[in-house]
Amino acid sequence: MFCSNCGSNSIQEKKPDGDTHFRKVCSACDNIIYENPKVVVGSVCTYENKFLMCKRAIDPQKGLWTLPAGYLENNESVEEGAIREAYEEAYAKIKINSLLAIYSLKHVEQVQILFHSKLVDLNIKPGIESLEVGLFEWNEIHWDSIAFPSVVWALNNFKERQNLDTFKVYKNPI
Amino acid sequence: MFCSNCGSNSIQEKKPDGDTHFRKVCSACDNIIYENPKVVVGSVCTYENKFLMCKRAIDPQKGLWTLPAGYLENNESVEEGAIREAYEEAYAKIKINSLLAIYSLKHVEQVQILFHSKLVDLNIKPGIESLEVGLFEWNEIHWDSIAFPSVVWALNNFKERQNLDTFKVYKNPI
Repeated sequence: MFCSNCGSNSIQEKKPDGDTHFRKVCSACDNIIYENPKVVVGSVCTYENKFLMCKRAIDPQKGLWTLPAGYLENNESVEEGAIREAYEEAYAKIKINSLLAIYSLKHVEQVQILFHSKLVDLNIKPGIESLEVGLFEWNEIHWDSIAFPSVVWALNNFKERQNLDTFKVYKNPI
Repeated sequence: MFCSNCGSNSIQEKKPDGDTHFRKVCSACDNIIYENPKVVVGSVCTYENKFLMCKRAIDPQKGLWTLPAGYLENNESVEEGAIREAYEEAYAKIKINSLLAIYSLKHVEQVQILFHSKLVDLNIKPGIESLEVGLFEWNEIHWDSIAFPSVVWALNNFKERQNLDTFKVYKNPI
């Protein structure tokens, strides 16, 4: 690894003054390289009693089914990011309904912020990151070919919340 | 800026194949440098009818008052991060009560995830990043010396939610 500030390769793990964590610090220029979790935004997108699912065209988990979701970019809100991802992956125009869940996925250094959204019209088709996209009733979802555990969590959380009298935002299952 | 993968300084803005965004790409080794928003976690921390506030010992906004909050680290959940920040900034032991708000601060490339927490006991004192910490009734808060707009948003959102019959999670004011 090289320092992005000076190009030196003399990077060492140490605890900077006043810091509580070990960081990657450049011994040549003292630049501190902070590494933090990234934000993934997406949605459980429904149309009547159907769910929008996307079959991944890229690794990881190519060929398996997921929700429209991806990394939040600079210069967009979390809601705008979820809307963009639905369009990029399925050309889906969606309206954000409400926040559904925040999952902290420590092992992959991600925070996933997932909404419930509604599909505006039926004009969907695969984007460049999808092999196939479709609307599925609950029992038609390809449960045996889901890309990531958090996809199952989000779908189940949505289903559970439909039966509650109150609003709720979910976190990782224990 | 230098490439963290090869140390070259030939980094150019271009749109990688299959990407929808311009990125910093190393012309020497094709490494793509992704830049994404960071997550700030923290809480409106209450003890009876009082609010925990911290006077900043560091820039930006040194000498002004804020909530216990800071950057989420790898290997912690958003809740764990909010608990850690309260301890680092005020030696405060807190219990997370509920999610309060998600603010997308595009201009500083942050997503702030703020909870309501409860202070467990009155043993608080300034951490290394605080000049002073204290518990303030609503009208005692140093409203004229607040460090960041989102501190005011979060306090107001908390106050507003106290008068609601339902759970609600806030976003940026319009």
